[in-house]
Amino acid sequence: MTNLERPAGSLRVVGVGPGLDAWITPETSAILAEASDLVGYGPYLDRCSLRLDQERHASDNKVEIDRARFALRLAEDGKHVAVVSGGDPGVFAMAAAVFEAIDAGEPAWRRIDVAVCPGVSAMQAAAARVGAPLGHDFCAISLSDNLKPWALIEKRLRAAAEGDFVMALYNPASRTRREQIHAAFDLLRRRKGPMTPVIFARAVGRSDERILVTNLAEADPDVADMATLVIVGSSATNVIPRDSGTPYVYTPRGAGARKR
Amino acid sequence: MTNLERPAGSLRVVGVGPGLDAWITPETSAILAEASDLVGYGPYLDRCSLRLDQERHASDNKVEIDRARFALRLAEDGKHVAVVSGGDPGVFAMAAAVFEAIDAGEPAWRRIDVAVCPGVSAMQAAAARVGAPLGHDFCAISLSDNLKPWALIEKRLRAAAEGDFVMALYNPASRTRREQIHAAFDLLRRRKGPMTPVIFARAVGRSDERILVTNLAEADPDVADMATLVIVGSSATNVIPRDSGTPYVYTPRGAGARKR
Repeated sequence: MTNLERPAGSLRVVGVGPGLDAWITPETSAILAEASDLVGYGPYLDRCSLRLDQERHASDNKVEIDRARFALRLAEDGKHVAVVSGGDPGVFAMAAAVFEAIDAGEPAWRRIDVAVCPGVSAMQAAAARVGAPLGHDFCAISLSDNLKPWALIEKRLRAAAEGDFVMALYNPASRTRREQIHAAFDLLRRRKGPMTPVIFARAVGRSDERILVTNLAEADPDVADMATLVIVGSSATNVIPRDSGTPYVYTPRGAGARKR
Repeated sequence: MTNLERPAGSLRVVGVGPGLDAWITPETSAILAEASDLVGYGPYLDRCSLRLDQERHASDNKVEIDRARFALRLAEDGKHVAVVSGGDPGVFAMAAAVFEAIDAGEPAWRRIDVAVCPGVSAMQAAAARVGAPLGHDFCAISLSDNLKPWALIEKRLRAAAEGDFVMALYNPASRTRREQIHAAFDLLRRRKGPMTPVIFARAVGRSDERILVTNLAEADPDVADMATLVIVGSSATNVIPRDSGTPYVYTPRGAGARKR
């Protein structure tokens, strides 16, 4: 291959959604069916039904950048690679790692046929389950400080509170990382009304799904684990109580703040 | 029907995605196939293939709350209603209007079988087309001041700049509303580096799709129209130039800001 030739393989970055197979787009299903090689975290690959002629390359959930480089090398070697994420691969997932790898990698990698397929992210599934909390201006923040300083996360939480955004908090906690969600709630409690709606949405779309609607004063941050997506309302976010079932939560398209 | 009986009909809020049919989830397709009545803005309904036994209720793109009330009344009367949005119905779309209508409406409406189906929103499709600009902390802001004061939009833009979020700007302009995107860019230029990546993504997934990658210094706000989604990078968002084709844009999972 000369320096200017396009590698014969391809790389697609796809997401299997937050949990329900019916949320996987037809585009993504077609990519998964056509790929010669599937690369991803084991539990995501478990959700794809592979044929005998498809290679499965499972990894743990660490060192995404190595997984991205491995996938790019396969594509360079002529394979048709699907890099499989959860959720939307473009939101706190594998697509950023693939482009980081391309940016820092061999010039030839910029000529590989690479594309990202959008999907349903965890915050969207969580929002849908309770109503429409993301119906107006919102932000998405990862609470993991594995790759960024906690000071930056705090700065963003402060700015998000200052701007009165609804917040979707990704990666609120893991088995070993428990302090961040407590620190985040402490910070938010000093800046937002006690009755601000809070949603803990765990394993949405899976058999062990659990949804809890509460408020900032009463929320127990320890409810959050690795599989939880947390939504914190704006001053305009409303709760509609119901006789039975989880209350609805929505953020109106207009912006009149409520007294809390 | 007594006061406590559950109405026999149902209401589902679905989105047909930003433009490509292959981005419509199987869940949404099933809802569209099973509905007795489809309610929505005409161009969205045009994307659904209706059977002869399905009722089509098309409206203009104004007064979403009336459309929501109309749909709830149909469901109360026993119809199986699909309220059809573009994109993800939960993000700047019809789901919020439906719950606003329930909140302000008749008590019986709280007992209607209502659910929202998540989908792919415009920012996700736009992001996928250029790489992974939403790969890390970001916010979504509507620039339309039809239902909220411009002062609140400015406050949120300032907070988003202060927090160094990537920003997805929805509803940047319409035929009659041109000043907001200019005012937004003026505000952001005073707060963010001139080389901050900017993406104008128009009609993503449609035959007239156009993607422009530029930067804050050179961006012409007049490029944006009703069908455009604008993404403005954080200080960490990078551009990868390529020999041919649109450059890639991504925001790394870590957070080292670049000098601009």
